[in-house]
Amino acid sequence: MITGATARDIRFPTSQGLHGSDAMTPDPDYSAAYVTLTADDGLEGHGFTFTEGRGNELCVAAIEALAPRVQGLDLDEVRADPGEIFRRVTGDPQLRWLGPEKGVIHLATAAVVNAVWDMWARAEGKPLWRLVADFTPEQFVKAVPFQYLTDAIDPGSARELLEERDAGKDERRAEMERDGFPAYTTSAGWLGYTEEEIRRLAREAVAEGWNDVKMKVGGPPDEDARRAQIIREEIGMERRLMMDANQVWDVPEAIEKTLALREFEPYWMEEPTSPDDALGHAAIAEAIAPIKVATGEHCMNRVLFKQLMQANAIGVCQVDACRLGGVNEVLAVLLLAAHFGVPVCPHSGGVGLCELTQHLSIVDYICVGASLDGRLLEYVDHLHEHFTDPVRMRGGHYLAPEQPGYSAQIKAESLDEFEFPGGAAWRS
Amino acid sequence: MITGATARDIRFPTSQGLHGSDAMTPDPDYSAAYVTLTADDGLEGHGFTFTEGRGNELCVAAIEALAPRVQGLDLDEVRADPGEIFRRVTGDPQLRWLGPEKGVIHLATAAVVNAVWDMWARAEGKPLWRLVADFTPEQFVKAVPFQYLTDAIDPGSARELLEERDAGKDERRAEMERDGFPAYTTSAGWLGYTEEEIRRLAREAVAEGWNDVKMKVGGPPDEDARRAQIIREEIGMERRLMMDANQVWDVPEAIEKTLALREFEPYWMEEPTSPDDALGHAAIAEAIAPIKVATGEHCMNRVLFKQLMQANAIGVCQVDACRLGGVNEVLAVLLLAAHFGVPVCPHSGGVGLCELTQHLSIVDYICVGASLDGRLLEYVDHLHEHFTDPVRMRGGHYLAPEQPGYSAQIKAESLDEFEFPGGAAWRS
Repeated sequence: MITGATARDIRFPTSQGLHGSDAMTPDPDYSAAYVTLTADDGLEGHGFTFTEGRGNELCVAAIEALAPRVQGLDLDEVRADPGEIFRRVTGDPQLRWLGPEKGVIHLATAAVVNAVWDMWARAEGKPLWRLVADFTPEQFVKAVPFQYLTDAIDPGSARELLEERDAGKDERRAEMERDGFPAYTTSAGWLGYTEEEIRRLAREAVAEGWNDVKMKVGGPPDEDARRAQIIREEIGMERRLMMDANQVWDVPEAIEKTLALREFEPYWMEEPTSPDDALGHAAIAEAIAPIKVATGEHCMNRVLFKQLMQANAIGVCQVDACRLGGVNEVLAVLLLAAHFGVPVCPHSGGVGLCELTQHLSIVDYICVGASLDGRLLEYVDHLHEHFTDPVRMRGGHYLAPEQPGYSAQIKAESLDEFEFPGGAAWRS
Repeated sequence: MITGATARDIRFPTSQGLHGSDAMTPDPDYSAAYVTLTADDGLEGHGFTFTEGRGNELCVAAIEALAPRVQGLDLDEVRADPGEIFRRVTGDPQLRWLGPEKGVIHLATAAVVNAVWDMWARAEGKPLWRLVADFTPEQFVKAVPFQYLTDAIDPGSARELLEERDAGKDERRAEMERDGFPAYTTSAGWLGYTEEEIRRLAREAVAEGWNDVKMKVGGPPDEDARRAQIIREEIGMERRLMMDANQVWDVPEAIEKTLALREFEPYWMEEPTSPDDALGHAAIAEAIAPIKVATGEHCMNRVLFKQLMQANAIGVCQVDACRLGGVNEVLAVLLLAAHFGVPVCPHSGGVGLCELTQHLSIVDYICVGASLDGRLLEYVDHLHEHFTDPVRMRGGHYLAPEQPGYSAQIKAESLDEFEFPGGAAWRS
């Protein structure tokens, strides 16, 4: 039974190196609003939500408002109905006004929900992906919040889909344990880097064996083209180049600017406009085909993903592990994506997102999407050293996690050093 | 020049009387995250965002994160470009991650933005509606954040629309100063009331001269029908009866349940499903016509309103004064509504929302929508006594405010009494 919760404000001063710079966020300090749940038997559950620095304190305060809602929750209740985790955390009608199911309160929901899943996976002695992969279709469906989705998918049709994908599950699991999940890299193309750095990093990416590289766009058009030219020179035309505009454009401009970059053959254009604009993405998708529209890292909840898919607005679903309300809501989006035939390529990077999304992509492959066609998991080589169970990469693949839990735990010494504002990293 | 800001957590224990109870929120404590800005010349600006109790502290903390962004802002800068208010408050790239433009950070944006407008209107010695009504079309357009809207309306087309509506502006202003703005009442039909209370309140509403009454639905179908029956018995079929489901239904259920209430001739069905679901509202609107779909109090930003209108999903735009990012973003939605021909009937009630929305409806009538056809402003008779410039009602109309400012100021003694958790109202 869960008996305690502590929340901490952890910030890494990444803005000093312009890591993570893009058209909307020139200087993020990658941060985690971090929660540790404790149970009466000594078990712990770790979870966090990712932010870009200022405002992380709001997510910590929201965790403090939500954590009492899982006090007294017993893992046997969770085993009987994993949907109870999401219902508990989101079920306060007064707190609902603050969203509903979006923004600070939903980011904090992710931290608390994920911490309960982490505790549950530890209790079972399994990595989270394995806990979920071992669900029967019936158990899986119980974990999913179907509210507001039933015009697209309901428990009955979801169960049919999962039963259909049951064939080959063991083989896909063995494949994941052997080869891991394919990744692409974003480390080469941040906006804040110089042309020389971009060329060097693109060259290194090729040397390291990456077949898929992402760059940031949304600066002055001639600079975007110049940077794309440099990267294409290094990676050739046979590798995939993804582009990410980080929401800087209005709909007409997104179409115009994407078409102007056509000669560099972008595989997808990510976040071409406001993440909230399902109809705008649909208009862009129609105009820029065969270039795909990708979005998700700012997509607030399952209702928005439903609409993006109903409107044929996205060719790539970049679900985020902490923007949505934790594992339960991510499972809902995996089902929607499979139902609509949209490949899932989770948003990753930041701090700790890679640690979480590797579990989600593996679950998607084994249980839901059941294909690797067009599936790639973002990889950014930052801050993994602070985790007790960090990602392990081999040949451009994420190796399947083996330790029990959701890989969400930050080392105790890192928590102390980077706690804001009192930690050593911030006092100096 | 703005030199100081204080934020306070103000909560009214309304849950004790089941005022405001609906299908999603059985027991709200109407609350305000309240900000007072001060200028070096002694001028003050008051603003707040409305919440339902728990979590109000998150909005207070978000105000504290945002208020430093207007420190040093001079009213002459605002006069030269009123869009600067919105850009300043929303322009922190790290804080943007927490929305963007939604949830806690956007609720707090409303408080700070509205406080600057309140200060500006006080400086001009005008009620806010008059400050805006006196704008030239050029000044009006400068105040509006067009980002992400230009596929529907851009500064050029907005200016044309405003210039076209310039004819008759003086007459409409005189009409507002003489007659005020027409209202409807929600005080009769809360879910928590007994059938006897509902009958008595509906009878009183008729006796008081109300022609339009709203009730809450979304409970068990036979109870909804029973309550509608009672209200129709009291108000007759010639008055308008609006219904509000407060998001309890999925899309197929919303259609079924609304059609089951058809015999009571609802004028609109409000919040039939998730506020985020533009496509879902479009499907409902098509299925339940000629009953109109109304939504807005939970609509997070102008991008969602744009889609609701592009998709013909709403017949009534219930913009909220504090859910959107303050006056600037509301003006954007008024323009969208006029462009798409959707009547604006702002969400109101709560604490202080009536005080704000009366200004917005009057601005809409004088400058933008320029019609009273299908326009009604919600009125709820709660908590007005705590304001220094409370609404004044006459014959089912809001009288045009006359005091300088945005009518947002809560009395000093009320702030002290209802401050949470230290005020006298909470200590007992």
